[in-house]
Amino acid sequence: MTQDPLVIFTPSGKRGRVPAGTTVLTAARRLGVDLDSVCGGRGICSKCQISPGKGRFDKHGVTVAEDALSGINAVEERYDRIRGLKPGRRLGCQAQICSDVVLDVPPESQVHRQVVRKNADARPIEMDPATRRYFVSVPEPDMHEPRGDLERLIEALAGQWRIEGATAAPAVLAKLQQALRKGEWEVTLAVHQGAETEPPRIVDLWPGFRDAPLWGLAIDLGSTTIAAHLTSLEDGHVEASAGIMNPQIRFGEDLMSRVSYSMMNEGGAAEMTTAVRAAIDDLARGLAEEAGIEPRDIVEAVFVCNPVMHHLLLGIDPVELGQAPFALATSDAVSLPARDLDLGAINAGAQVYALPCIAGHVGADAAAVALSERPDQSDDLVLIVDVGTNAELLLGDRARVLACSSPTGPAFEGAQISSGQRAAPGAIEAIRIDPETKAPRFRVIGCDKWSDEDGFWEAVGPGGVTGICGSGIIEAVAEMRIAGLVDARGLIGSAEQTGTNRMIAEGRTHAYLIHDGAEAGGPRITVTQGDIRAIQLAKSALYAGARLLMDERGVEAVDRVVLAGAFGAHISPKHALVLGMIPDVPVERVTSAGNAAGTGARIALCSRAARREVEVLVREITKVETAIEPRFQEHFVAANAIPHATAPFAGLRATQPLPEPSFNASGGGEGGGGRRRRRARD
Amino acid sequence: MTQDPLVIFTPSGKRGRVPAGTTVLTAARRLGVDLDSVCGGRGICSKCQISPGKGRFDKHGVTVAEDALSGINAVEERYDRIRGLKPGRRLGCQAQICSDVVLDVPPESQVHRQVVRKNADARPIEMDPATRRYFVSVPEPDMHEPRGDLERLIEALAGQWRIEGATAAPAVLAKLQQALRKGEWEVTLAVHQGAETEPPRIVDLWPGFRDAPLWGLAIDLGSTTIAAHLTSLEDGHVEASAGIMNPQIRFGEDLMSRVSYSMMNEGGAAEMTTAVRAAIDDLARGLAEEAGIEPRDIVEAVFVCNPVMHHLLLGIDPVELGQAPFALATSDAVSLPARDLDLGAINAGAQVYALPCIAGHVGADAAAVALSERPDQSDDLVLIVDVGTNAELLLGDRARVLACSSPTGPAFEGAQISSGQRAAPGAIEAIRIDPETKAPRFRVIGCDKWSDEDGFWEAVGPGGVTGICGSGIIEAVAEMRIAGLVDARGLIGSAEQTGTNRMIAEGRTHAYLIHDGAEAGGPRITVTQGDIRAIQLAKSALYAGARLLMDERGVEAVDRVVLAGAFGAHISPKHALVLGMIPDVPVERVTSAGNAAGTGARIALCSRAARREVEVLVREITKVETAIEPRFQEHFVAANAIPHATAPFAGLRATQPLPEPSFNASGGGEGGGGRRRRRARD
Repeated sequence: MTQDPLVIFTPSGKRGRVPAGTTVLTAARRLGVDLDSVCGGRGICSKCQISPGKGRFDKHGVTVAEDALSGINAVEERYDRIRGLKPGRRLGCQAQICSDVVLDVPPESQVHRQVVRKNADARPIEMDPATRRYFVSVPEPDMHEPRGDLERLIEALAGQWRIEGATAAPAVLAKLQQALRKGEWEVTLAVHQGAETEPPRIVDLWPGFRDAPLWGLAIDLGSTTIAAHLTSLEDGHVEASAGIMNPQIRFGEDLMSRVSYSMMNEGGAAEMTTAVRAAIDDLARGLAEEAGIEPRDIVEAVFVCNPVMHHLLLGIDPVELGQAPFALATSDAVSLPARDLDLGAINAGAQVYALPCIAGHVGADAAAVALSERPDQSDDLVLIVDVGTNAELLLGDRARVLACSSPTGPAFEGAQISSGQRAAPGAIEAIRIDPETKAPRFRVIGCDKWSDEDGFWEAVGPGGVTGICGSGIIEAVAEMRIAGLVDARGLIGSAEQTGTNRMIAEGRTHAYLIHDGAEAGGPRITVTQGDIRAIQLAKSALYAGARLLMDERGVEAVDRVVLAGAFGAHISPKHALVLGMIPDVPVERVTSAGNAAGTGARIALCSRAARREVEVLVREITKVETAIEPRFQEHFVAANAIPHATAPFAGLRATQPLPEPSFNASGGGEGGGGRRRRRARD
Repeated sequence: MTQDPLVIFTPSGKRGRVPAGTTVLTAARRLGVDLDSVCGGRGICSKCQISPGKGRFDKHGVTVAEDALSGINAVEERYDRIRGLKPGRRLGCQAQICSDVVLDVPPESQVHRQVVRKNADARPIEMDPATRRYFVSVPEPDMHEPRGDLERLIEALAGQWRIEGATAAPAVLAKLQQALRKGEWEVTLAVHQGAETEPPRIVDLWPGFRDAPLWGLAIDLGSTTIAAHLTSLEDGHVEASAGIMNPQIRFGEDLMSRVSYSMMNEGGAAEMTTAVRAAIDDLARGLAEEAGIEPRDIVEAVFVCNPVMHHLLLGIDPVELGQAPFALATSDAVSLPARDLDLGAINAGAQVYALPCIAGHVGADAAAVALSERPDQSDDLVLIVDVGTNAELLLGDRARVLACSSPTGPAFEGAQISSGQRAAPGAIEAIRIDPETKAPRFRVIGCDKWSDEDGFWEAVGPGGVTGICGSGIIEAVAEMRIAGLVDARGLIGSAEQTGTNRMIAEGRTHAYLIHDGAEAGGPRITVTQGDIRAIQLAKSALYAGARLLMDERGVEAVDRVVLAGAFGAHISPKHALVLGMIPDVPVERVTSAGNAAGTGARIALCSRAARREVEVLVREITKVETAIEPRFQEHFVAANAIPHATAPFAGLRATQPLPEPSFNASGGGEGGGGRRRRRARD
């Protein structure tokens, strides 16, 4: 008696015997091998392609005969002729197993294929989106058993795909009958399967086999900007990204001024809700157009945002977030139809998922950073700082993760800085000051050359140098500190004290001249005493937040620091350390994670498992409320000095000596930050 | 050792021992006694009132002491002072059991109280609505455990009412925080709990304890009229009813003309959908106003309607219902938010339930009739006929139920009748013809007197006699048949043939003059040959449908007939038999069920159990499709004669002799019905 053929799938290594004549797809399903199929084995979708091995496989103890699989059949021949099949590939639903065989499942044929992330350290995303395509054949109506088309469709979905008890959006019901008849009783469905408590929901349907991927939007809804990434729900790649200003800026620059707007104006919250939803809708429409896809193919959207943005998006007045105890209306993840958010540009049945909020001041954006960076899986103690108008901080390792937020204000984004501007061409983004001559050289956005290199001015073009962006001002202040132009308390020295006439007297204070474009009709770019004070306030808030988490955790140092956020990617670690934005760690242990919140949104879009993980993780995080913690004010005051009044920053000073001038007596007139600092020392 | 006190609840008879000091409400819950409470035992809602018995109860073997319950406490005293407590009543949540006691739970204190229906034969409705009020106390927010208000509310609902995993409508989320604070962390919720697959949903909430009942709408959406009953979800009583014309009439009088409108006009179905939804919205708004309740308190709506109305309501093009195989887009019960139907007048979170459809031509209205009349629980074989522009027929008993529909057309509603009009004041609704003199006497709507009684004309008033409504035309034709003015084939005799000059020649046919109001400027009311033909077509369709069901069931007779529908209530059983509308049964076995579809809607509104029952029942009904059944045409032709060409109607004739004149030769010019009949006999 001959044995059934042995089939071995790679890379999974799953193996087993199946009766001769079994198709590869059936064998894969029986053995629990991850082999994709949208059409359910009808030879239409080509998702189940595999590559059969040939010859001897010592590792598996198998020799594969030439005719281990059945010959290419008419369906495969037709598919190859019309759409083309890569060499050596077979359709798993057509090829039958005749004798022992080794079959390789290429990545694109795996349902749970992995999406490799740019950041080499990061875990890959395993595809497991909530909304997927399913091709189904529906029995025709029978007058003598007059069940509805929907009921037969739902039964077909259960029978052919084991998706039980699906429901249908009202819009689906409206187009169901026509689609079934046009597709001759075959349709492609987009089915959403969210949390276990939500029944599967038919989001949309198309007549016949629909050969186009489904898309999702990963949206990072910030106070200042809204960024959206059009992401494939089939392989997780980002097809197009776009960002726009948050139109709520006209109601207030920062979060608290928007909360105030809502408190002071009847209907103010609703106004801001309408504005932000319309902007998101426009953004989605624009992305679809840019990518050349139908907006109807966008069937999911995932949102990450801080609590105030989160509430305004959901139509909730954020007033409670402006006062203790900072109660969230809802803290858990929210899943609801896109039409409830008036998102009309994307599919009418699209589902929205908003990540959970960690606390009243620590939002779904921080949850997304946690999902992207997984501090709970870190072997060493990591501090993750998402720098923005409001900074989110996470501190933790496998033992425990803590989170807080800190109101840094807009200075890091170039706002409230005399020569400040948003990151755009013409903005100074990097700067170095010669310790001897005190002369600056700099680089602007849109030009790779430094200002002291040949051809710099030609390369910059007629727009010239227009201002300083966030990363530029951080470097400028830090470089001024290194060059001895600013003392530890943040006071700018005079021309006499510093020996350079770049120091310009402005009333009782001084400013440092970086570039005088006045001759060419451009701006005069300086760093003023007020700028230094603004940066001191912002960095003190950031450091104080980090220190508070360290207190809670009972540590005096962290092992490494991750700078997250679009802006975080542009911050020079050394300058951040000189400024004392972050605790003292070796400079090489300060890394950038890019837009981790956006990445977290994308992970949640691609993976239901990740949603469950972040939902659990968020509940396990220890929340620290900076606004009511008396020590926060203490830490804030001590952090006002550059780099710090009490923390030694010995590691930094070992590699980067800092001069210690004192401009107090002669410089005169200090800002608020200076006064505070004095009080703390008294 | 003394035993715990024995407590006996009436009328349930449930009994058991509880520790002394247990409150009556707690005891009831422990013993599974149906005792209501909205406030959860806080002495606010007074729903848990009971009447303690006094003295000796031989039946129960118990003697109740004077102090069997604790004395009236401050909460009860305050409640009695402010809102008043009936004599002998106690609040079950306050009174504690001290010794053996017999406690009566009055009907209004029962959660599942029964609603007695007008029809004495009918089963009472046991209250079990999907949406109920719940009073909950929510823990205040805690900065150190920053879960959202919604999460704490959901947990409170689970903890205090065992309603697990509730979700909230977006509108609820928007008002949640304000309501919780205004109510000092106590709120009253309206919670919808539908089918097991639907998670509980918070429909709305109010600060503190809300002392107002919730309401539902039972809506009978007919082709011609829309009737709505504003029904209490607490005790099932109908507070107000209203009806309006279906605005879709302007797109076509009957169902098929509306289907045609949709086929012939791009966007026609959407137009009809918009029109009917707006009309329902107006109707709801008007009912709330009439009843003096807040529209927001209407939290549910149940719809019954035929398949075409059903599809148009749900926004589905009914085109498939106009052609074989008459496929329904959806046949199962539909549950969806009212906002999906653009019903803005009622609560934004209200839930809509539409009963299941039986088949492509037998709708949710027939399902509602089945739910109201329960043919499946009948010991004898009952034929239920819901008479309307489209008639629904149910035939069955405990063994098996069959259903079909029959296109009777609008003749029974007075349309397409020369002197016909809708049932309204001035319309002849009953008529008798003297067999000797052939003179008619009649009664009109809005006047109790017969036309030959003294004071009739004064009572009728200046409006006079305006026409004949549906029940009037049925009686007129039947009386003409009894009086020998019309022969079995439906031909009207001439003045010579009948011996009365009330017969007026009209071309080659004759008409019977009922009333000549010409002198008073009123109409001349006659029954023409065309009227007879129209009624013959309508009644043949009805009878043929019934006969087809009897064929399927394999019977030659039924035991009883129930006439349903608003119009059915006004049909005289004897005249319906003479006309041959229904199979021959003893006249006293023909009864009226009133608006059974509307009653079915009300039952489904008040009882979730009833919804489950009708969902099962509908699937068990045998569907008969008249439109494709060859025998239908046969039965239709044979039923054209009055009462019938082949069925003997012996029972009828035994009590009501019918003369058999033949007006064929001299009367001349027959309509289509006559020709068909001849062909069938050839």
